[in-house]
Amino acid sequence: MTDVKHMKWWGWGIEGVGFHYDDKPAFAPFVKYAVGLDLSTPATPVAPFSEITVPASRASEEFVSRLTRIVGADNLTTDDQARVVHTFGKSIRDLIRVRAADFPRTPDVVVYPADEVEVQQLVDAAVEADAVIIPFGGGSNIVGSLEPLASEERTVISLDLGRMRRVLEIDEESGLARIEAGAQGPDLEAQLVEKGWTLGHFPDSFTHSTLGGWVATRSSGMQSDKYGDIADIARGLRVVRPGGTLVIRPLPSTSTGPSVREMIIGSEGRLGVITEVTVQVHRTPEKRDVYAYFFPNWGAGLAAMQAIAESDATPSITRVSDARESAFSLATSKESSGVTKFITGTVLPGLMKLKGWKNLDEICLSFIGYEGSESHAKRQKSLVEALVKKHGGFGVGTGPGVLYDQKKFDTPYLRDFLLDRGAAADVSETAAPWSKLQTVYTNAYAAANRAYAELGVQGWIMAHLSHSYHSGACLYFTFAFVHGDAPLEQYDVVKRAIQQSFIDSGATLSHHHGVGLEHAPWLEQDISTQGAAVMQGLLDSADPTRTFNPGKITGK
Amino acid sequence: MTDVKHMKWWGWGIEGVGFHYDDKPAFAPFVKYAVGLDLSTPATPVAPFSEITVPASRASEEFVSRLTRIVGADNLTTDDQARVVHTFGKSIRDLIRVRAADFPRTPDVVVYPADEVEVQQLVDAAVEADAVIIPFGGGSNIVGSLEPLASEERTVISLDLGRMRRVLEIDEESGLARIEAGAQGPDLEAQLVEKGWTLGHFPDSFTHSTLGGWVATRSSGMQSDKYGDIADIARGLRVVRPGGTLVIRPLPSTSTGPSVREMIIGSEGRLGVITEVTVQVHRTPEKRDVYAYFFPNWGAGLAAMQAIAESDATPSITRVSDARESAFSLATSKESSGVTKFITGTVLPGLMKLKGWKNLDEICLSFIGYEGSESHAKRQKSLVEALVKKHGGFGVGTGPGVLYDQKKFDTPYLRDFLLDRGAAADVSETAAPWSKLQTVYTNAYAAANRAYAELGVQGWIMAHLSHSYHSGACLYFTFAFVHGDAPLEQYDVVKRAIQQSFIDSGATLSHHHGVGLEHAPWLEQDISTQGAAVMQGLLDSADPTRTFNPGKITGK
Repeated sequence: MTDVKHMKWWGWGIEGVGFHYDDKPAFAPFVKYAVGLDLSTPATPVAPFSEITVPASRASEEFVSRLTRIVGADNLTTDDQARVVHTFGKSIRDLIRVRAADFPRTPDVVVYPADEVEVQQLVDAAVEADAVIIPFGGGSNIVGSLEPLASEERTVISLDLGRMRRVLEIDEESGLARIEAGAQGPDLEAQLVEKGWTLGHFPDSFTHSTLGGWVATRSSGMQSDKYGDIADIARGLRVVRPGGTLVIRPLPSTSTGPSVREMIIGSEGRLGVITEVTVQVHRTPEKRDVYAYFFPNWGAGLAAMQAIAESDATPSITRVSDARESAFSLATSKESSGVTKFITGTVLPGLMKLKGWKNLDEICLSFIGYEGSESHAKRQKSLVEALVKKHGGFGVGTGPGVLYDQKKFDTPYLRDFLLDRGAAADVSETAAPWSKLQTVYTNAYAAANRAYAELGVQGWIMAHLSHSYHSGACLYFTFAFVHGDAPLEQYDVVKRAIQQSFIDSGATLSHHHGVGLEHAPWLEQDISTQGAAVMQGLLDSADPTRTFNPGKITGK
Repeated sequence: MTDVKHMKWWGWGIEGVGFHYDDKPAFAPFVKYAVGLDLSTPATPVAPFSEITVPASRASEEFVSRLTRIVGADNLTTDDQARVVHTFGKSIRDLIRVRAADFPRTPDVVVYPADEVEVQQLVDAAVEADAVIIPFGGGSNIVGSLEPLASEERTVISLDLGRMRRVLEIDEESGLARIEAGAQGPDLEAQLVEKGWTLGHFPDSFTHSTLGGWVATRSSGMQSDKYGDIADIARGLRVVRPGGTLVIRPLPSTSTGPSVREMIIGSEGRLGVITEVTVQVHRTPEKRDVYAYFFPNWGAGLAAMQAIAESDATPSITRVSDARESAFSLATSKESSGVTKFITGTVLPGLMKLKGWKNLDEICLSFIGYEGSESHAKRQKSLVEALVKKHGGFGVGTGPGVLYDQKKFDTPYLRDFLLDRGAAADVSETAAPWSKLQTVYTNAYAAANRAYAELGVQGWIMAHLSHSYHSGACLYFTFAFVHGDAPLEQYDVVKRAIQQSFIDSGATLSHHHGVGLEHAPWLEQDISTQGAAVMQGLLDSADPTRTFNPGKITGK
């Protein structure tokens, strides 16, 4: 059988790896304080796969034979677990449903093509048979881009690109690498680093997401301030469509009308199957440091990030957590880590006294990255630190930064841990102009708290700013609460409230998670009725047979 | 009557301003050398407007009345000269045709709406009457985006946005300005500068082009290395469409599916009428300098620009002319200018000897800009100059840079001057990855020279590199020849040869001039058959009545 690895059928990451807090003494008290959850109560383990019921595949034998002739018997399956793995992404809605064996519709068959030729044959076979194709990368999506529509009557193919994962070619002179769309973060970065290059794209999902998935959802990474969002990075594209391949050649810029490149980016599978992407790559930088800073409060941290964005400085990461997220970060730090010692020891209180900071509960933790040549990184640091100081902050070195670098990809495991114990947690992120960020922040908090009050639950919300641009930034909220018997309905109340507050405050429905089914209800409010109609026209005209992941993005 | 100013009906710029060479002693010998044209032969002046025949307006009285009720009698005209002004842009094809009174089709009526409400009424009236709308900004287009199709049977409205030119609002905190689409470069920049801001967008057409036009054609400016292309700068958009306005709110970034913002950018009027753009603006920089450099030859200059793009340096302008364009620049310099003295005097020969440069004919002139705080500009200069030196170049200060800054917008006048004397000149520009630039360059030269040989004319071609990106740059070619009795046919042979060489060498059909009718034949070769089909689907679905500038970009 195919060697493509998948995440757990029921949760994030690989089997045997999970969140634990034995070495994090502050964690249990924090969770009790934040959502009222007592971690000493026993967890409910996920039922073994053998105990759940999965709807049978609806694919006809004849059609399965047809597809088998294309990819070979080893690279096609109608197996229950494989179909469950390919049904959802990893949003809290997905996790709750998969645990409840709530499968309104699963894919009928999973195929693993070897190359673009096979993808073309699969696409043409699907169109001919009036089947549906849903491209699948790492399965980390959290906006419902992967699930078949519940009402789908046709055969649904999950087209897994996991075998197409090679770095095909590096144009060293141009800093461009041609990479197959199914390459996952660590794999492709390793192939690049081996030759002295980096992509510089590190989304939180990095360890389990693919290049094709990043392009399909307009992804951003932690170092995007320096390397750009995937929309900047992805210069060339190959997209298999009925009857042929759409080819966008790698160009630094072009004025060829409405950008077809930008139509493919964020298309979530609706315009065809992305098979190959030519991306900008950079020489592995001489320096790649992440420094930690503390600000007296959120307002100061926000103002500092804005001042940095306005300045001539070009750091690789600009991130500041609000007081609650800072407290969370400290609570999930290992006992032995420098940052915990720093906080719980005498250093911080002494410094606070020195600076006249009154309230430990208000301090905000910030991470700022510097990359490039030694002298460039040094200069950026000096430019940034002058602004940090101006806004009342101070640096605490690279210790916590290294910590951040190490654990940044681990947070998703926490969701499964909490869900085992009856608490639901997920995220909503957005972007807005600098002038609106404080309002967006305040309104999202108020919306979440109103939703918690309505539900009668003790809820938690926390946030950070990341991804600074000239005219604004991304705000990223994490929320959690102990759910009752109707977790999805409760989640909907909270999620809806936060998303609506984004739109009403002049922010967008998502900065880098895409639209899928989850955010589709806000599309029209975000880009206007006319904008949604233009987009629908594009999707309908490009896919009149509704072969490609129908219903996503626009809900139609 | 409306106070909207236009360029000459027959050429570039305003009446009374033109190219002259009394103070440029090297110019006449240069022209003789380059294209064999003797400037002492008398020029053929353009015939007065009264002597040319213009096809009558085909608009019905009833429809004109309907439009008059919307914009008022002062803001509508069917006058011959106004219709001629609105028939073409300013490409050499346009200039040749307008001089020959070759008008396959003119607009039937020109309207000047006061605001978005009137634009909406005009759009709805046009759809109802099955008329065509061609939005018109400054009229500087050189790819045939403005002319009605020769075969157009319906009434054609030229919708001139010249009255909509205000800077409406500056969000100082976010660095965002809301500006009406009809604002011309100098006017909008003056409104911004008055308040301490700059847009930083300075295309060659700056003095006679509009914000809406820049967006509609995916424009780039001379300082785009720093400020970004218009696709980066334009964050929010308002586009009037049948039945309502498409609104893209100003966001620093968003993951709302295929980017409708990017569909509007470069749409050349085909998706509706752009009425307002929210753009990124920057505080007027402390320093804004342009320095000149010389390189021993084109290869060295090209390699230096590439090294700068790969480095941590962020200059605002990176531009290097090839030897022929450098010679042209020196030939068009005023006698009294520092650069001429530098070249014709003893300084350069002395320096060349010192550096061991053998051939004055090979030297290449480069302009590099530095903007920002005093210390930022200083550091960028020092980083860049180390690389210039490494590639054998040396600096000659800001003298020629100031000259460049002053005369950069005057070059288009030269075309009319040459046309008066029987020579046709125009430009073709493109972009490609760094690894392909030398090939693109060599092939374009070869293609032009083959075309000249085929025509049996003495032709000239010269080029510069501008707009550097991480993975490539723009190459900008200017070509000229003394035409015979069939100037358009001859021009087509040369232009076609150069454009085809771009595509065949892996470059794009245009970096920043758009597609229009002129480049439409290469669209499919550039973005693939599938890409062109997806684009056509977008245009057809968004404009089923073919109201908006039909036929442009895709030729359909």
